[in-house]
Amino acid sequence: MERSLSARERLIQATSHLIELQGYHATGLNQIIKEGGAPKGSLYYYFPNGKEELVAESVTIHGQAVTEQIRKALANVTDPADALHAMVTYVARKFVHSDFIKAGSIASVALETAHTSERLRNVCSEIYTAWQNAYANMLIEHGFRPDRAARIAMLITASIEGAVVLCRTNRSPAPMLAIAEELKELIVQAQKQL
Amino acid sequence: MERSLSARERLIQATSHLIELQGYHATGLNQIIKEGGAPKGSLYYYFPNGKEELVAESVTIHGQAVTEQIRKALANVTDPADALHAMVTYVARKFVHSDFIKAGSIASVALETAHTSERLRNVCSEIYTAWQNAYANMLIEHGFRPDRAARIAMLITASIEGAVVLCRTNRSPAPMLAIAEELKELIVQAQKQL
Repeated sequence: MERSLSARERLIQATSHLIELQGYHATGLNQIIKEGGAPKGSLYYYFPNGKEELVAESVTIHGQAVTEQIRKALANVTDPADALHAMVTYVARKFVHSDFIKAGSIASVALETAHTSERLRNVCSEIYTAWQNAYANMLIEHGFRPDRAARIAMLITASIEGAVVLCRTNRSPAPMLAIAEELKELIVQAQKQL
Repeated sequence: MERSLSARERLIQATSHLIELQGYHATGLNQIIKEGGAPKGSLYYYFPNGKEELVAESVTIHGQAVTEQIRKALANVTDPADALHAMVTYVARKFVHSDFIKAGSIASVALETAHTSERLRNVCSEIYTAWQNAYANMLIEHGFRPDRAARIAMLITASIEGAVVLCRTNRSPAPMLAIAEELKELIVQAQKQL
């Protein structure tokens, strides 16, 4: 049996969900409290500095969970190209299953706040760097030079974030599936040059 | 001498700029009127249906201008890999020059409104499709099969949109420059298979 979530956890989960759905600015504190089913006082008890603090924590926790998923999906694989292809097609299937909602919250926060909140900009940057490092480390383990691994990892990170936007506007997993194929091909060709 | 912009054009330009800076929901009509230096009545005169209509027009006009820039940059080139590399590094330099502001407005609108406005979702989708077609047509002209060209074009479109987010959070052009290198390499390898 799963333990029930604390009020703090419910607030964080509601924040992630609402940002995925409609972005940072459209998401108000009262809506978060309602969606999270948390007592009104709990928000300022756990997040005395308000929305920016709550969103920073939500981006961090959600982002770290994704980092762990990436690491697990790519741990101890025999073929890095196939492993990445399998991971990205899995992301595409999950995204369809959530009606193209459950992704893109960090990109939303980044696009809406990078010029107005250093704190949120830094939090988003740290998460993207962690994802990039997870891809790069997997490639290095398979014999890639660190500089090439870092560049390919950047392409993987950028193209998945961009494909989330394209899948959402097209209401189709096709963009994510297309990049899965091309990233696989890129890694296959890069391996031949090792 | 450039002709001065009409009130309608100033409203559209102000809308694009404010969305690049802070996203869709944070951008209010009064702020657009003030930024555009347009008479208050002009907004509802030109855009009687309000914000959604104004933003749809702004995304379309801005997006079509980018489509034209892509077509021009890639017209009559001798080497598709070099041409794309030059185009993406140019985008990176321009983005630095604007303090990482002047890009990402369509991704913002897409992420914030795709679940709430079919009109805006469709407008964003049409623009992304036009960009993708511009890349695909260039590759087809250089002998690529249409299906492969479409897939590579999707990777180009997705990775540039994602790199805008990463450059903004890192306050660095490095992500865009990294994808410029890898997209070039991908096209070079793909040409060998033609």
